[in-house]
Amino acid sequence: MNTTTEIPAEARTDARRFAMANALRVLALDAVAAANSGHSGMPMGMADVATVLFDSHLRFDPKAPRWHDRDRFVLSAGHGSMLLYGLLHLTGYEDMGEDQIRAFRQLGSRTAGHPEFGHAAGIETTTGPLGQGLANAVGMAIAEEALRARFGARVFDHHTWVIAGDGCLMEGVSQEAITLAGHLALSRLIVLWDDNGISIDGKVSLTDSTDQRARFEASGWVTRAVNAHDHADIEAALAWAKAQKQPVMLACKSHIGFGAPTLQDTAKAHGAITGADEIAGAKAAIGWEGKAPFEIPAAIRADWARAAARGAEARAEWQARFAALTPARQAEIDRVMAGEAPKKLASAVRKLKRRLAEEAPKMATRKASEVALAEINPVMRETIGGSADLTGSNNTRTADLGVFSAADRKGRYIHYGIREHGMAAAMNGIALHGGLAPYGGTFLCFADYARPSIRLSALMGVRTVYVMTHDSIGLGEDGPTHQPVEHLAMLRATPGLNVFRPADAVETAEAWELALSAAGPSVLALTRQNLPAVRTAHVNRNEVGRGAYILAEAEAKRAAVIVATGSEVEIAMAAKAMLEAEEIGTRVVSMPCWELFEAQDETYRRRVLPPGPVRVGVEAAVRTGWDRWLCGERGSAKKAGFVGMEGFGASAPYQELYKSFGITAEAVAAEVRRLL
Amino acid sequence: MNTTTEIPAEARTDARRFAMANALRVLALDAVAAANSGHSGMPMGMADVATVLFDSHLRFDPKAPRWHDRDRFVLSAGHGSMLLYGLLHLTGYEDMGEDQIRAFRQLGSRTAGHPEFGHAAGIETTTGPLGQGLANAVGMAIAEEALRARFGARVFDHHTWVIAGDGCLMEGVSQEAITLAGHLALSRLIVLWDDNGISIDGKVSLTDSTDQRARFEASGWVTRAVNAHDHADIEAALAWAKAQKQPVMLACKSHIGFGAPTLQDTAKAHGAITGADEIAGAKAAIGWEGKAPFEIPAAIRADWARAAARGAEARAEWQARFAALTPARQAEIDRVMAGEAPKKLASAVRKLKRRLAEEAPKMATRKASEVALAEINPVMRETIGGSADLTGSNNTRTADLGVFSAADRKGRYIHYGIREHGMAAAMNGIALHGGLAPYGGTFLCFADYARPSIRLSALMGVRTVYVMTHDSIGLGEDGPTHQPVEHLAMLRATPGLNVFRPADAVETAEAWELALSAAGPSVLALTRQNLPAVRTAHVNRNEVGRGAYILAEAEAKRAAVIVATGSEVEIAMAAKAMLEAEEIGTRVVSMPCWELFEAQDETYRRRVLPPGPVRVGVEAAVRTGWDRWLCGERGSAKKAGFVGMEGFGASAPYQELYKSFGITAEAVAAEVRRLL
Repeated sequence: MNTTTEIPAEARTDARRFAMANALRVLALDAVAAANSGHSGMPMGMADVATVLFDSHLRFDPKAPRWHDRDRFVLSAGHGSMLLYGLLHLTGYEDMGEDQIRAFRQLGSRTAGHPEFGHAAGIETTTGPLGQGLANAVGMAIAEEALRARFGARVFDHHTWVIAGDGCLMEGVSQEAITLAGHLALSRLIVLWDDNGISIDGKVSLTDSTDQRARFEASGWVTRAVNAHDHADIEAALAWAKAQKQPVMLACKSHIGFGAPTLQDTAKAHGAITGADEIAGAKAAIGWEGKAPFEIPAAIRADWARAAARGAEARAEWQARFAALTPARQAEIDRVMAGEAPKKLASAVRKLKRRLAEEAPKMATRKASEVALAEINPVMRETIGGSADLTGSNNTRTADLGVFSAADRKGRYIHYGIREHGMAAAMNGIALHGGLAPYGGTFLCFADYARPSIRLSALMGVRTVYVMTHDSIGLGEDGPTHQPVEHLAMLRATPGLNVFRPADAVETAEAWELALSAAGPSVLALTRQNLPAVRTAHVNRNEVGRGAYILAEAEAKRAAVIVATGSEVEIAMAAKAMLEAEEIGTRVVSMPCWELFEAQDETYRRRVLPPGPVRVGVEAAVRTGWDRWLCGERGSAKKAGFVGMEGFGASAPYQELYKSFGITAEAVAAEVRRLL
Repeated sequence: MNTTTEIPAEARTDARRFAMANALRVLALDAVAAANSGHSGMPMGMADVATVLFDSHLRFDPKAPRWHDRDRFVLSAGHGSMLLYGLLHLTGYEDMGEDQIRAFRQLGSRTAGHPEFGHAAGIETTTGPLGQGLANAVGMAIAEEALRARFGARVFDHHTWVIAGDGCLMEGVSQEAITLAGHLALSRLIVLWDDNGISIDGKVSLTDSTDQRARFEASGWVTRAVNAHDHADIEAALAWAKAQKQPVMLACKSHIGFGAPTLQDTAKAHGAITGADEIAGAKAAIGWEGKAPFEIPAAIRADWARAAARGAEARAEWQARFAALTPARQAEIDRVMAGEAPKKLASAVRKLKRRLAEEAPKMATRKASEVALAEINPVMRETIGGSADLTGSNNTRTADLGVFSAADRKGRYIHYGIREHGMAAAMNGIALHGGLAPYGGTFLCFADYARPSIRLSALMGVRTVYVMTHDSIGLGEDGPTHQPVEHLAMLRATPGLNVFRPADAVETAEAWELALSAAGPSVLALTRQNLPAVRTAHVNRNEVGRGAYILAEAEAKRAAVIVATGSEVEIAMAAKAMLEAEEIGTRVVSMPCWELFEAQDETYRRRVLPPGPVRVGVEAAVRTGWDRWLCGERGSAKKAGFVGMEGFGASAPYQELYKSFGITAEAVAAEVRRLL
């Protein structure tokens, strides 16, 4: 056995911290070995940096893991999850006992393969899909700046720290995150780049030649090189970083698989180090011998406990300051941090609905969304809107929001730039931080660009609202690259995501109320083109909240049910008129949110969609998923049909496209007749 | 009316080119005005740069638009489509007559809102979703290098030119493209950045502070600033660019909406300039008065014709060189450029299938994919493989491929790095260039990262093969961030994309044959975990080619049909065994490709899925889309059920996950019994 791995001398000069870091290394080695699965190398490489950060700089208190003013620590290189679990365990987070470390990657444990938000305290975000954590952190730093401006530095005054790997920096989303952070001068954001020169396929030099420091500096960051195993150098760099006026990237030159006899500095160390010799050799190299797996000497545990105790004092000081606020102020801060919508939201929406039912405006639902926001934003001041450079098209900016910028932290609107992915990831970060309710716009077709982050919104269950306009061929001349046809199916297939496609201004207002009151993410799919009002009789109840409902009952004896969403409800109503004229009684069901309809009880669902009549769905999108409501388990019609898209769209004025693709009242009526 | 817009003096010093450029400007103005829709400002701003490029540098011949050795010109800022249409029209592309210019953005025209590949000659790729063209161009430049290395500079010796806007450069995919191109030292790639300082929301300074030249230089590019209205400066820069040994970015400082009296240099110029005064003023400013819309003076047309004629000579010289090759060599080049698979492919796959049916290996389909590639790559030497840093996991690299790099252009494997999006876009570019058959790997879950480019593969109908492994909870411990559940639905919902989910090694080989013989893109969804052989009797016919087929007929009287894909076919077979033991005759249908089954005639589909028996689908994914085959228009079973996922996965050994989520033979058999 080769136990002569060269451990850099500087790593040993601070014996206390070296031992603390070695505890992290050993926990990673042992947990991965026990699971026979995982990633050993990264925790071993970044253990020293993480130790100094948690020992002297990170503002945290394991006894109050949701403390509003804690620093946020994001392990963007989520595969190194054992580094995070080790830190949480050693600093004494209650729900991260040794049982959890031993159950790494096992069913039901809190210690999943990658850190999962909600599994354990101290996991600030779900990471693993590379680059996401870094981009979430930009959102967290935005939230901190915005809340500090609103509530003062006595309440919000913390940093966001990120450990990011080469994979994070190679993903495109990192560029969107970096350029946004640089532009916004988010000086409380500090990225610790694990510069180990290794990725899964081999040396990074196999795939990339980027001068990362120059790249960050090109976007307004300051950077500094750090020896990731020299505790003094790390200490100095972290202190320096906190003093900067721009976002900071520290290039931490590290050894992946630090100490592993044959694997250190190799791609093989990226994954699971499981060989007994290799593990023994790695432990020997760091002077960790004669101990059982998972055994941490009491002195080292005591050092980690001291590191954890440091935060308690800061928290107590903060708590005293918080307690000095007026009770109303405290309650307000607690409410927004908990993500609870204000009581006034419901009444504001009800009032708006009443007005809209009376006025019955013919308007695009994107415009209706703006009308709703104009009522909501003043009564729900934690909203923070934005758009990926389509403000005028997405109708996301209402009066008096102001613009959040380097110069104005009180602004409530973010010009995210042409960065759909970075926007979505930042929105996740804003929501995760708490205190704000982010919404952001783009075209529905460009949900594609944001797709990895939308999935994480759903997986984490955070309240983000995606305002996605131009939701079909109704977009018209811009053509098939801009016309979603499969996107509703893609989003509806995603668990935990509410997809709203409202039919008029009233439904749009109802959708907004639901989205802002939800515990998870929502997509609002909105039209570019004008639509007539279909909800012209006011009801207090939020009809969209039931997912689908009877918009218009059959007049003649009921023979058909037409189910439609969004812009096609107008078509369904016109088809109904044609059919009723022929004495074919036709019910129209508006179905703005499949997920909420699914959540209704069987009785309600069968009431809305009875088994007898023929049933036709109509939506300017592909059929995928519709059969469930037409004739599947959740449906039960004997005869069912669908009018929609069968392929990509085309470039032309939208009225011509609807005709050309056969999505018309005539076609729907004909389909009903065919089935009858 | 204000007609005093300041036109830079240098723009006027080359009167001939200024007039040529003005023709482009006027066509854009007139076409957008006629359509009352589109983007006027970008063509007006970049007209001078485009004119010099087409007049003196671009290697093209409108009489031979598919000439193998033409330069590729990519309008990455696709919203400026009228710039491209104007260029194609003025240089005399036959299918781009004035009728097309006048029909801009109208139904059935070749002049869609954004350039659509296949609509007209000279449109090298579909652009509009920002950043895609730039990233496609990286693939085109890779193809040029690879083909030059294979066939010599006498056959392939051209450049790839890109016009990219701020939007392209802000999208994350641009970073993946830029860093890949820099690393690979793609010196034939020249990007002309339309540095107009404007995006839709306003000035770029509203959203970005990046020093773009420094950013490119950080990744190994060379850059130069250019006055986008000084023909001499442009001329010098283009000549300089072609002499570089690294990829080149020219920062072309331009005026968006050049000449428009009140809109030049404003965000309003980005879209449609339709005001009569504004149009008249813009024309006056460039000295274009007293002409009817779309009217181009004969002298200017003649200058454009001369620019076009320049390429004919180069093409003739090339044609002579090509004709001097052996007929076999010529035929080979023509074949690969046409994207036709070699005749040997079918026989190689058949031979492999025979062997696999005999050996009946228990192996993961990702491994089976490697086995197939090991047979295919030697007989289909135009394949060019790769992976987004998951080579060992995706099993995409076979022996003797070599690695394509700056030092070795003959390598047939690309280490794409952690750049799923850039990889997919580059694969599109490689396929569009012609001559190579690109395939590339990642985890199925990270199809999300590549989603915008996958959609474009489908929209364009190019032969790209996405090797997507770890295709379900079968991935195990890495957990829900890495476990696809909705991705099959997302991909199947996308028109024009064949999604294969083979059940064993034989099906995998068949899927590869189909993917490489297809006219469009394919996804191969492959397992991490081992699967038993289910196709142990050799048949010559490609069963996967029919999309779904009877894998095992009922033994007792047929009462049930179980439909499964991929790894769940094993479960279906085990359920069948249980049910047959109870005298419940059960057919198992393997359904590796929905799209190909859909393409079969009604008779075949009903033969495979008869209406009588109960029907149960099983797939470790969400149900979305399945009802179509269970009871929808394409199905017709009276009673149907589904066994699969209802939400996200979890982190644990995969066998436990299958049990925990109830995707087992017992559950499938129970569902059959319930329905009976």
